[in-house]
This record gives sequence, structure tokens and C-alpha cells, in this order.
Amino acid sequence: MSGSLVVVGTGPGKAELMTPATLAALAKATDLVGYGPYLDRIPKTRPDQRRHRSDNRVELERARHALSLAAAGREVVVVSGGDPGVFAMAAAVFEAVETGDPGWRALDIRVEPGVTAMLAAAAEVGAPLGGDFCAISLSDNLKAWTTIERLLRAAAEADFVIALYNPASKARPHQLAQAFEHLRTIKSSKTPVLFVRAAGTPEAKVVTTTLAAADAAQADMRTLVIVGASTTRRIGRWVYTPRSEGAAS
Amino acid sequence: MSGSLVVVGTGPGKAELMTPATLAALAKATDLVGYGPYLDRIPKTRPDQRRHRSDNRVELERARHALSLAAAGREVVVVSGGDPGVFAMAAAVFEAVETGDPGWRALDIRVEPGVTAMLAAAAEVGAPLGGDFCAISLSDNLKAWTTIERLLRAAAEADFVIALYNPASKARPHQLAQAFEHLRTIKSSKTPVLFVRAAGTPEAKVVTTTLAAADAAQADMRTLVIVGASTTRRIGRWVYTPRSEGAAS
Repeated sequence: MSGSLVVVGTGPGKAELMTPATLAALAKATDLVGYGPYLDRIPKTRPDQRRHRSDNRVELERARHALSLAAAGREVVVVSGGDPGVFAMAAAVFEAVETGDPGWRALDIRVEPGVTAMLAAAAEVGAPLGGDFCAISLSDNLKAWTTIERLLRAAAEADFVIALYNPASKARPHQLAQAFEHLRTIKSSKTPVLFVRAAGTPEAKVVTTTLAAADAAQADMRTLVIVGASTTRRIGRWVYTPRSEGAAS
Repeated sequence: MSGSLVVVGTGPGKAELMTPATLAALAKATDLVGYGPYLDRIPKTRPDQRRHRSDNRVELERARHALSLAAAGREVVVVSGGDPGVFAMAAAVFEAVETGDPGWRALDIRVEPGVTAMLAAAAEVGAPLGGDFCAISLSDNLKAWTTIERLLRAAAEADFVIALYNPASKARPHQLAQAFEHLRTIKSSKTPVLFVRAAGTPEAKVVTTTLAAADAAQADMRTLVIVGASTTRRIGRWVYTPRSEGAAS
């Protein structure tokens, strides 16, 4: 049991947003474990480094594989997108530790923080997360839709800015439309809504609209959606949420 | 009006968590504008670079100064801690743009995302932000305490993990205790509570406790507090929130 396991995130996609600490962990690893497209973002640094590619929806299985490699003495890095602690692999690793081989609890495990999608998306458009905010994953693979509706309702009623992760996929095309419908019953129709695709990459694309006009079809798997608070404001091409309740009014 | 303004964050403190994009912006700047202790984190890269230090509580004034430098043709970088879009300088810059010289709207303004404190804090202890979560600033310099209580209540009732920024300062020693009192009326007394001081630096210190036992005196200006959801779990030295509602139970 002399190996180690580090959970890292690649950030939004381009190398300039990956931290030096993450790059150092990747360079030191004997084994990289992750979803194929995330592994493809990592430059080859050592010829003997093994890459273990997996599909998207097998987080726990992937985590167990990584832990068993570490237990066998390998220097393992588990590769997520964004920040590994936000709707990503770090939670899966600790769930695998809790439910797996008791020896795994003694392993040298570490998490390296990264730039999560909502921060890169916010930076593309200004400072929409400048006030109090929340992050909700719209994927109901892992939780009930009624739970998601409860979170949306609470966030809207309390007037948080809302960052929506996993707003849509081929298997779940209708949920974002349902979420907008739900939010329209609570929030002003003029609330700014942002669709930020491929944030933090050269292909970044921003659509700024309102809750009334927001069309769920504009989101795909690479989109992060931000729904403003009552104070969120548009000035020209920028959108921001003032820190102060009474700002600029 | 040929200058530019980039808003960056230093991340949690150590250079290894500052992105290459941020380091590149800093290296290119003719002028750095920021709160003194944040500027002190930046290595000197060019001898002709001017540093404009300011106090902590003058964000709008600092933003206007930075914009006027950019309007005069300088390459300006505004330096925040963490991520500049989360309870930091980016919102102040856009507020200054909205309320200031109309010519400022035509300036070349950009925001570089960074690693915000809650991500570094979460990484120190495992994956407490693994589920849906919110970020609330406890500072009532800029908003009413009744607003903060409304946010806390909504977050607790909806069962978000809660990250508390600015939990305490010399001028506000009692608010975190009030926040815990408020949360105890809604959440289980066994809810995990984490005090993470100087996250992402070599001096990082973690206290893991419960909502019943949480002592607000353990927080200071460098502490990030995380209050778990009902699903947040402790395994040995680690704390994580499963992505799935029914995980590991």
C-alpha cells in the first residue's frame, strides 16, 4: 500500500487554466484514470505513463479501479474536468473508499482544486456570480427530479444567482425547459439568463437573454447556464451582479 | 483609450494554484491595482511595473482608479484573492463601469477565472461540495443581516451544502455564531461543519466538527466555513457529499 491517488481537474479545457499544482501531479503520475475526452486534454509528459480510459457514466467503477491501482503501489491521478470536487470525480473516489476495501482508507489520497465551469463561464460575461449564488446539477441520473425542483424553487425564492450544471444531454433534452418553466413562476421575466458554451476555451460562445426569452434548445452538454438574481444587471456586452443590495440603483 | 484592464485572482495564496493565464496577464501589466496583501503575493517580473496598493474596503474607488489608468492607455491588472468573480473585484469593476465615465464602456476589459476559496477548502478535506451547494458571504457591510438570514434559511431548508465566505472579522465577531444558531433551528445537530483556515497554502488547518459543537470563535478572516447537507458524510479524516441521494446508505 505504498502508492498514491491524486484527484485533479483539467479546468474548463485550455491548458492556461490548469493550475501548476495539477500539471505537477499529472507529470509525476504513473497512471492516469479518467473519462476519455478529459484524458485527451493532458499532454504526454512521460512515455511510461499508462492511461486508463473509461466511459462517462461509470464514476464509481472508475474510482474503484483507480484505488486498486494505488493500493498496488502505483502513483495514480484521477482526471476530472473543471474542479474535481464540483459534480465530478472527487466525491466518487470517497464514496468508493467508504464502501470498498478497508485498506483503501490508509492510502495517500489528495485532491487538487481547479477552475470549475461556472467560474470560467462567469468570467466570459463579466461578474454574474458577484453576489450570493448556488450551483445545481440538472442531471437526474443521480437524484430525483422532484429534488431538483425543490432546489430550484428555494434558490429562486431566496434570490440566489443560479448556476446550472449539466443542463442538457441527448438522454435528457427536456429538463432545462422544465427548469425554466419552474423558475418563471417565481422570478421576474426580465431576469438575465446566460448560456455560456465552451467557457474558458477559444471556442467560447455566449448568449445573453432573459428568463422570458430563454430557449432551452440553446444548451448542450458543453453549456453552463446562469440565471441571475433580481439585482443582476446588463451593461452593454457585460452582465454583473453587484455585491451590494443597493448598488447602482 | 488604447489601454486594457484584466481582473484576476491570485487563488488561495500559493503560486502553484494561480493559473498560467493569470500569471501571463500579470507579467504583461504596466500597472497592478489591488489590496496590499494580494499584491504582495505577486512576484516582481518587470522593473517598470507600477503597483497601486489600497485598503481593503474601498473596492469601488479602487475599480475607478484602475479604469482611469486603463483609459489613459496603461495595461492594468486588478488583483483579487481567489477567483475575481466570487465576492471580489470583478463586480466592483463593472459597477464602476456602469456608474462612471461613459468612455469606460469601450475599454478592453477581461476577467480571468481562478480557484476560489471554497474549492481550495473543499479539496483540503475531501469533497464536501460534491452535491448541490451555495456560497453566501456573511459580511453585512454590503447587505442587510435579514437578507443573509433569508439566504441561510432557504439554503438549509432546501438542503444545499453551504459555503460561508467572510465568516468573521474584527469588526464582525458575532455573525457566524448567529448564523450557526439560525441553522441549528433547521438542520440536524449532527450535520458536519468544517472550518478550513488558509486553504491551499502550506499553513492550511482543518477543524471538522458538527453543527451542535461548532464554535464560531474558531473562524477568522482567513477561514472558509462549510456546513454540510443531510447527505454529507465523514469517513476518517475525510468529509464528502455523495452526488447521489441514495449513495452509501
